[in-house]
Amino acid sequence: MKNKLLKRNLSMLMDYYELTMSNEYFVNGFKDTFVTFDYFFRNIPDKGGFVITAGLEQFVEYIQSIEFTDANIKYLRKQGIFSEDFLKYLRNFKFTGDVYVVPEGTPVFGYEPIITVVAPIIEAQLIETMLLLTMNHQSLIATKTNRMVRSAQGRPVYEFGSRRAQGYDGAEYGARASYIGGASGTACTKAGEMFDIPVIGTMAHSNVQFLVSEYDAFKMYAKTYPSTCSLLVDTYDVLKSGIPNAIKVWDQEVVPRGFRPKGIRLDSGDLAYLSKKGRALLDKAGYPDAKIGASNSLSEYVVRDLLTQQAKIDWFGIGEKLITSSTEPYLGGVYKLTSVLTDGEYVPRIKLSENTEKITNPGYKKVWRLYERETGKAIADVLTLHDEIIDDTKPYVLFDPNATWKKKTVTDYVAKELQVQVFNKGELVYQLPTVTELQAFCKEQIDTLWEEFLRFENPPKYYVDLSQKLWEMKEELIEEHSFK
Amino acid sequence: MKNKLLKRNLSMLMDYYELTMSNEYFVNGFKDTFVTFDYFFRNIPDKGGFVITAGLEQFVEYIQSIEFTDANIKYLRKQGIFSEDFLKYLRNFKFTGDVYVVPEGTPVFGYEPIITVVAPIIEAQLIETMLLLTMNHQSLIATKTNRMVRSAQGRPVYEFGSRRAQGYDGAEYGARASYIGGASGTACTKAGEMFDIPVIGTMAHSNVQFLVSEYDAFKMYAKTYPSTCSLLVDTYDVLKSGIPNAIKVWDQEVVPRGFRPKGIRLDSGDLAYLSKKGRALLDKAGYPDAKIGASNSLSEYVVRDLLTQQAKIDWFGIGEKLITSSTEPYLGGVYKLTSVLTDGEYVPRIKLSENTEKITNPGYKKVWRLYERETGKAIADVLTLHDEIIDDTKPYVLFDPNATWKKKTVTDYVAKELQVQVFNKGELVYQLPTVTELQAFCKEQIDTLWEEFLRFENPPKYYVDLSQKLWEMKEELIEEHSFK
Repeated sequence: MKNKLLKRNLSMLMDYYELTMSNEYFVNGFKDTFVTFDYFFRNIPDKGGFVITAGLEQFVEYIQSIEFTDANIKYLRKQGIFSEDFLKYLRNFKFTGDVYVVPEGTPVFGYEPIITVVAPIIEAQLIETMLLLTMNHQSLIATKTNRMVRSAQGRPVYEFGSRRAQGYDGAEYGARASYIGGASGTACTKAGEMFDIPVIGTMAHSNVQFLVSEYDAFKMYAKTYPSTCSLLVDTYDVLKSGIPNAIKVWDQEVVPRGFRPKGIRLDSGDLAYLSKKGRALLDKAGYPDAKIGASNSLSEYVVRDLLTQQAKIDWFGIGEKLITSSTEPYLGGVYKLTSVLTDGEYVPRIKLSENTEKITNPGYKKVWRLYERETGKAIADVLTLHDEIIDDTKPYVLFDPNATWKKKTVTDYVAKELQVQVFNKGELVYQLPTVTELQAFCKEQIDTLWEEFLRFENPPKYYVDLSQKLWEMKEELIEEHSFK
Repeated sequence: MKNKLLKRNLSMLMDYYELTMSNEYFVNGFKDTFVTFDYFFRNIPDKGGFVITAGLEQFVEYIQSIEFTDANIKYLRKQGIFSEDFLKYLRNFKFTGDVYVVPEGTPVFGYEPIITVVAPIIEAQLIETMLLLTMNHQSLIATKTNRMVRSAQGRPVYEFGSRRAQGYDGAEYGARASYIGGASGTACTKAGEMFDIPVIGTMAHSNVQFLVSEYDAFKMYAKTYPSTCSLLVDTYDVLKSGIPNAIKVWDQEVVPRGFRPKGIRLDSGDLAYLSKKGRALLDKAGYPDAKIGASNSLSEYVVRDLLTQQAKIDWFGIGEKLITSSTEPYLGGVYKLTSVLTDGEYVPRIKLSENTEKITNPGYKKVWRLYERETGKAIADVLTLHDEIIDDTKPYVLFDPNATWKKKTVTDYVAKELQVQVFNKGELVYQLPTVTELQAFCKEQIDTLWEEFLRFENPPKYYVDLSQKLWEMKEELIEEHSFK
């Protein structure tokens, strides 16, 4: 049996229609026609204030590793609908386009082009699924983790979710994204190794059950790990057995050897009540420095409520609700054709829809963020055509694209382009930061938002406006394609 | 840059505490102590009637491929807490235990040992995360898909979710699980290739936008794929443009060449209204055999409601809500120590908890399903100790473990053990079925349930009872460990 877990090539991870359409373009002579596509989402998960982008590193690795093997070609040939010339083209496939990306760790908003791809139609089309999958997943987890980190008000939040993740990548890349979003570490050893993220672990109930005696189990663990052990105190009874046994072990075993115990972990029961009672027991016994950690189906809402109730919890381990973003487990990012190069010009394309929110912003675009010069706080984002410039030495008139009479003239601002070029004619031209750098960058970027955007419920809607030129072009195209 | 997507070894995908505990067992002389662990869940996602097990094939691949490389050992050594002898042991690690599993595709219920591992403590402990991750994920998706398939009342349901999956494995193994749960195919080309699942694809909006003219786009697509093309009719306006253009193309291009068109796909707007109007247009134009497919954020509830409203939809493509099991995106399966081999006997272990539903069923166990002899329908499941036998030539007294006065004597029944042995002393002794076989097996097994268990809301609770012997042992252990 061939072990499919060990070695893999993700080139075939694509919706089948990307292949059928590409073959169609190929046989109809459109192979070399350049187009532009935008990756963007419409709605922010959990009705939150912003999304944090993540996943670029893996998207880059994918682009650099695309290879349709002989076995892949054989499989496709068997389907009986692909031309031999197209299959030969696939066998030698290499991405040769340009890619512009809003860097990982940036807070972004609905309808903004987070990635813009400029490439021959087949190349742009075939990378659709992997681009969406990678960015949708990691951005989702980074965003969710950041909510949880905010709810913990400065206390560390650790990612504990591998066992409930949706697949192995869900665990590994989920841990990576959670770190970018502000987690202090992960329980996933592999993620720790892959991305140089701090790994942490305490002990499991099985450890206590194994020796039957909780005291014996704590003693063995504390002797083995005098400086790092967090004792899990809820296998039998937290207040009557777990914490008293922990104290007894520390009194007899650990402190005499010159170490201070790290602390305990609560994993069931009422965490507010038990942490307060537990804190009192630990303080009274002379361990005010022993930390109390808590886990057990935590979410940003539970963490917020526990802290509102003065729970004495020093760190949080969050599992399934972080690693699956359980209240909204997908980011609905899409990848839409925006223009086709015709006679040297990128001619815009639009998609209408019965659902008006699904109408796309046409054209080869870029995205700008305007900051108040004095405070450095973000005022609004503006989508413009690719060749437009926002000159921040002059006042700029913002207007709501859905209510154009709502206007605002901004002055004393700094305008920055959000996208950077990552691929130039298929070559990587961007230095990927480490996850530690990304975590710091993410924090800085969030600090440029006014704090009302950090609310969990009912944050205001950040302005994402269109330039006058883009807005006019969109209106014209809608008019052109609408049926009376 | 080393491309981490291409090659991987999942051996390090484990919670760090599994390693710290294993090192502890190693240095304290417990390396060779045999234990038993059970994998089970407590709650059924979506408050459904049952869970469908899935993931065994990948769990087997994992067990067969565990290898801690020199690089892994080096990483662990750097943590500064592992003994050199333990690291040497890891470098030569091989799983040598026995594993019993309820086969993939079986409907199962809360608290049943779906997997029982009998192995030296370190081996049993180190496989925890991968076992949980694999089984929790695939069982979740198989279960969710089966709900959607049931809601479609015989119409094909296709898995369309790759772009919103939680990581690459989420897409691939999610597609696998969805097929076991009853999906008719997937849009994920790689899953099709890996598991020999039918792949399907229609066309994307970009295809229409690319040519601007919907008619031209349909014509090109229909000419390229005369026998397989499903035309996507909602890029501009379904009833005024999309369907009329499809009919025009079929009239002029496809039928003359002797093919019948496959049909259309709706991806926005009110699917009930548009499908009814669309059906009438197609029928009137002489295409009663053209199928109408629908997609756009479908769920089992939306599908049920559409069909209740007589929507004329022939097949469903379901994306994010299937591939993430969006209403409940994790199965909370756990892996608990149940006994320790002491003087030749598996001595039971229990875990109490402030949350009573978290108290474990102790002991080295197996699980039986009792079927009515006449109808073949499942009556109840019974957990027994590993050496107990249910003799179905004699009446059997079932009782509710939480209300022991509720008794029922069953006669004329057949008792079957649900677990099969998969590993014997580390060697695979089980022939893994193909996914096609698993899909058929799953259907058969679901047919043994009374139909009330197939309800989406408020299905009855299936009986999962304990044998008298197991119940008594559990009560004794609770008494022994409880604090007054």
